[in-house]
Amino acid sequence: MSVHAIIWDDASDRLVLLDQTLLPGETVYRTIETTDDLVRAIEVLAVRGAPALGVAGAMGVVVAMDEARRQGWDEASLQHAIDRVRAARPTAVNLAWGVDQVRPVLPQGRAAVLAAARQLAADDEAANRELSRSGVDWLLDRVDRRRLRVLTHCNAGALATAGWGTALGLVRELHARGRLEVVYADETRPLLQGARLTAYELAADGIPHLLQSDGAAASTIVRGRVDCAIVGADRIAANGDAANKIGTLGVALACADAGIPFVVAAPWSTVDLATASGDDIEIEERAGEEVTTYAGTRVAPLVTEGFNPAFDVTPARLVSAIVTERGVVEPARGEAMTGSPGE
Amino acid sequence: MSVHAIIWDDASDRLVLLDQTLLPGETVYRTIETTDDLVRAIEVLAVRGAPALGVAGAMGVVVAMDEARRQGWDEASLQHAIDRVRAARPTAVNLAWGVDQVRPVLPQGRAAVLAAARQLAADDEAANRELSRSGVDWLLDRVDRRRLRVLTHCNAGALATAGWGTALGLVRELHARGRLEVVYADETRPLLQGARLTAYELAADGIPHLLQSDGAAASTIVRGRVDCAIVGADRIAANGDAANKIGTLGVALACADAGIPFVVAAPWSTVDLATASGDDIEIEERAGEEVTTYAGTRVAPLVTEGFNPAFDVTPARLVSAIVTERGVVEPARGEAMTGSPGE
Repeated sequence: MSVHAIIWDDASDRLVLLDQTLLPGETVYRTIETTDDLVRAIEVLAVRGAPALGVAGAMGVVVAMDEARRQGWDEASLQHAIDRVRAARPTAVNLAWGVDQVRPVLPQGRAAVLAAARQLAADDEAANRELSRSGVDWLLDRVDRRRLRVLTHCNAGALATAGWGTALGLVRELHARGRLEVVYADETRPLLQGARLTAYELAADGIPHLLQSDGAAASTIVRGRVDCAIVGADRIAANGDAANKIGTLGVALACADAGIPFVVAAPWSTVDLATASGDDIEIEERAGEEVTTYAGTRVAPLVTEGFNPAFDVTPARLVSAIVTERGVVEPARGEAMTGSPGE
Repeated sequence: MSVHAIIWDDASDRLVLLDQTLLPGETVYRTIETTDDLVRAIEVLAVRGAPALGVAGAMGVVVAMDEARRQGWDEASLQHAIDRVRAARPTAVNLAWGVDQVRPVLPQGRAAVLAAARQLAADDEAANRELSRSGVDWLLDRVDRRRLRVLTHCNAGALATAGWGTALGLVRELHARGRLEVVYADETRPLLQGARLTAYELAADGIPHLLQSDGAAASTIVRGRVDCAIVGADRIAANGDAANKIGTLGVALACADAGIPFVVAAPWSTVDLATASGDDIEIEERAGEEVTTYAGTRVAPLVTEGFNPAFDVTPARLVSAIVTERGVVEPARGEAMTGSPGE
């Protein structure tokens, strides 16, 4: 299928988002009327995934322009609203990037900004398809097995992008080539993006998969049940350090121990050359209640507080490959993101 | 506090178990009338934790004797019932060990078997207090910090033993000596023993703690937020390989990467010298629904199947210390469990 989670709806001329907090149980699209709506949707992760946030940021500029016109805002108020969208989540570099891509077009008017945002979405999906092909080529050159068994963490699929997906884009490409055996999907606590979203996408595409707790990942890898791990990224530093959903670092450590490829798949917009290394990446800490509750039910004593970093940073030395639409970089072999191939 | 989860109740002359599936919300003790009751309690993890299973196994022999008398069973039926208790969970060696400790006393009658089972419980708690002291001595010799920050996984506390606890025994000992800063407790999916049981014990004792998702463990360790990890074990092979709750291996890999101690605390009854290495340890696979649902709520698509190994095996090379009441063995330095110190 490759669902689309972010749509500029021509009928209403509004931004419409698939509310990912309700998946897999309910498929509800929400119309975004205001920047408050959009900031809230980003904060609660109704829309999430680094590349998707880039598109949401770009389209959010149009949302802010429409609200400014309705409310009679001055230029400063409009810019403030756009800044709020831009800063709604700190770790994903794509959100700010998406805003910044279309902001210079503002003087040319709404139609130009909307066209730029739509182009950005189209480019993201095209980039995903391109990086999926080159990433699979890279993997098949290195893994000596007819059908690959892949582990993934969190959701880096169509739902996390403008379409097709990054990590799940490689999975779809393997499946399309008849080279996929099974996907082990980590459930990805605390918000269960693996259970709710990755399993949803794989089930919809008829791709064989098993859902496991995050704690099972190391054992699945070290016992030789998978041939590689493929994940997305929220920010990639110039040296190849990669921030991604909390739990990714543990997957990378296990892959290094087992000697299998650990692959990060992301559009080039996730690469932040202004960030020298992972030490400079701000890690969003979310509310502890996301950990002390499970599916709305309190699971820990009332006095117990949760520690809830949303992301971790995998050092370049553990990253076998970073796959973007510009090609493959191998940080574990000392390659940096600067001077990427194809440039 | 150091709660007692397994009690031989003098008033009713019955085995009484704290139903750990209801914690932390409800504190319910259940009287065990039959071997079926006990096998079921073990299977659903109403009673769990390797040392606690040893005590439950020993007291289960008395339960079987009482049932045999009431039902008029012959000797073969009694032995069959005892065998069912002994095999209720395959990975924890202590369960079979507990049964085997008291079985030879059978010909001496019920009072002798009960006395042996009670002695086994008393010995377990005493062993935990002893290993807690020597484990803390070992740690304080190696960690240069006034108050230690400890990460633990699953529950190896009073609830998992006859009393006091193993991993949490060391935590209690550190706390009593004024040398504990904070405990990071992994929630331990799928059954949340960390959130429900470890946090419950720490909260009851007023020990500072933070609850985190299992995926956060690697990052917490590699970022230097803790000084060591301390966990329990369900079976320790002769070479020092240690089976413990799924997710433990990932903790050990991160400790090795960070260069901090990874400590396994367990009574000597958890050491199975008949098992040469972790390759020979049977890993219990539990129902996939434990992963795809929570509290009756489906969190994954209906077609999605769960993969649910209950344990993993941490290789000896990653285990800095195994602490038992017989002293400290250092498998990562090549020490095997045979010929343990203090013997």
